[in-house]
Amino acid sequence: MKPTLPDVPDLHDAALAARLQALLDDKTKPQGALGRLEALAQRIGLILGSEAPLLREPQLVVCAADHGLAAHGVSAYPSDVTWQMVENFLAGGAAVSVLARQHALALTVVDCGVRHAFAPRPGLVDAKVGWGSADSSQQPAMSPEQCARAVTNGMDLVRGLPGNALLLGEMGIGNTSAASLLMSRLTGLDIADCTGAGTGLDADGVARKIAVLRQVLLRHAQASEPLQALAAFGGFEIATLVGAVLQAAAERRVIVVDGFITSAAVLVAARLRPHVLQRCVFAHRSGERGHTLLLAHLKAEPLLDLGLRLGEGSGAALAWPLLVSACAILRDMASFSSAGVSRRAAHATV
Amino acid sequence: MKPTLPDVPDLHDAALAARLQALLDDKTKPQGALGRLEALAQRIGLILGSEAPLLREPQLVVCAADHGLAAHGVSAYPSDVTWQMVENFLAGGAAVSVLARQHALALTVVDCGVRHAFAPRPGLVDAKVGWGSADSSQQPAMSPEQCARAVTNGMDLVRGLPGNALLLGEMGIGNTSAASLLMSRLTGLDIADCTGAGTGLDADGVARKIAVLRQVLLRHAQASEPLQALAAFGGFEIATLVGAVLQAAAERRVIVVDGFITSAAVLVAARLRPHVLQRCVFAHRSGERGHTLLLAHLKAEPLLDLGLRLGEGSGAALAWPLLVSACAILRDMASFSSAGVSRRAAHATV
Repeated sequence: MKPTLPDVPDLHDAALAARLQALLDDKTKPQGALGRLEALAQRIGLILGSEAPLLREPQLVVCAADHGLAAHGVSAYPSDVTWQMVENFLAGGAAVSVLARQHALALTVVDCGVRHAFAPRPGLVDAKVGWGSADSSQQPAMSPEQCARAVTNGMDLVRGLPGNALLLGEMGIGNTSAASLLMSRLTGLDIADCTGAGTGLDADGVARKIAVLRQVLLRHAQASEPLQALAAFGGFEIATLVGAVLQAAAERRVIVVDGFITSAAVLVAARLRPHVLQRCVFAHRSGERGHTLLLAHLKAEPLLDLGLRLGEGSGAALAWPLLVSACAILRDMASFSSAGVSRRAAHATV
Repeated sequence: MKPTLPDVPDLHDAALAARLQALLDDKTKPQGALGRLEALAQRIGLILGSEAPLLREPQLVVCAADHGLAAHGVSAYPSDVTWQMVENFLAGGAAVSVLARQHALALTVVDCGVRHAFAPRPGLVDAKVGWGSADSSQQPAMSPEQCARAVTNGMDLVRGLPGNALLLGEMGIGNTSAASLLMSRLTGLDIADCTGAGTGLDADGVARKIAVLRQVLLRHAQASEPLQALAAFGGFEIATLVGAVLQAAAERRVIVVDGFITSAAVLVAARLRPHVLQRCVFAHRSGERGHTLLLAHLKAEPLLDLGLRLGEGSGAALAWPLLVSACAILRDMASFSSAGVSRRAAHATV
């Protein structure tokens, strides 16, 4: 059973790209002096199809789920922390809650498969596919039906959200393991290069984690297609994020990718629809080992490099004002002619 | 003639540092998971002397002046661009104007010595020491009296500003040359390692710039003390910034350093009062050659690395929300106990 995925066409528009570049070059600054902020303005302009892009009603979606594999000690924290942190997100006390408030990002927390019954409340979406994914060292983390349902949930979720920008976040004790497994399988990189300390394992813990993950990869040696790998390794929150990315890309929303786990979801989505990457802004380089290689694989240049390794969408929220700035540069800066500023000297190298 | 400089005492407070670290470690996140944002929170807490630091009424001060040395083709732009950009700052069309509006930073433009008569208006401070500094290839850029006046102007300026945070910016065609000269003289690094393309010289232009600057250094071989070097190489805006940095440091304001030129001003200030560096947050690593070495010399780790090379305080403005986030983390995040989140497993490495 496969989910019905949306088309994600090529955004290529040479004429708009040229117009955006001409606009940026005519702003009152030396050419290229705003560095990567100018490339960011270009990208957002192309995604939104506008020479004066405006980001509207940004949505920060945090997908949460539990992982059967967590029973094998692949995380420094117990699985209960997943639901406790969901409560913390909703109560406003988590990092992502604080940062979302700072930047007026609408925060939606999605129960994609947490092993806990939540009382319904505003800001919490019930998209539970199961009570935690299965233990992938014993069986696929999800059935094909569960995987399809989670992906479809992500698509439906985004379809119902306002605005033109989606910031991705996640929570799930054990989910760096799922992300590492997906990365290793879909990129062909050795699992040791894809695996890090997660929430804070020491060197012995990481070595054990790698050994566990190597066995999981062997057990699902045939799971090579993106959706097969996703079902084999999980988790529900990653599959929901895959659907969210695909739908957001199809709608030409700006997608702000957080850290290692959301990047793994983008990797899966990009294997299904390669042009999703044109719609992605990578917020930061995580301190999690594996993320640097994953970013390189995706040819992504993240905006921030602050050693963050929290997830939740915290890095996406921290990078958000840079996107707003990039649009403001395009929309609000004066041109040389409008401001009456002299251009560069004819013989600048005299 | 020397300006009277304020005391800048050591901020060392081991007890407060320990309390801040304990607070950060008790927030609902793995220890250290917010990476350099945690170090930033520590620093701001220590500067403001608070476990719950709050940044109030941030002031972005852009100091502008002209440089006699610019006649030697050390910049890709004509000197008239200095006053034209001052007009652009005040009219709201420059990058720094746009970014200051985005982040609600109060913008003050200071005429420290522009070769132009400005009509008085709100937001423009007249602290003109001269009509551009002298040509440092022929004589000192400033007299000792002019240098002292500019430094004192910077101190007076900050004394009159509200708030507890100062963001530094500058404008002055030719001022990367002055900054390179100061850097070379005060650090002992070769001028070639301190000199870059500024607003956009090509390789030949940079080579000529280095040759000019090497001659200027020889001409002022005796100017080795910080204020002597400042007077010899200029400019008025850098000297005013030196005074602003010293006064802000004495008042324990958070000082947000922009790019290469403001970093050179901080270098001068730090030679006069070493503890100013404890009050500084370095916003970004500029694309200007020399800035990386200067940051290393100052043992500074900048927040952003976006290839910016515009000055104006644009990088300081772009980094500003990260400082606000760092304070919000300390002030608003829940602790493990308050949120009812389980701590790390006792045997995390099982």
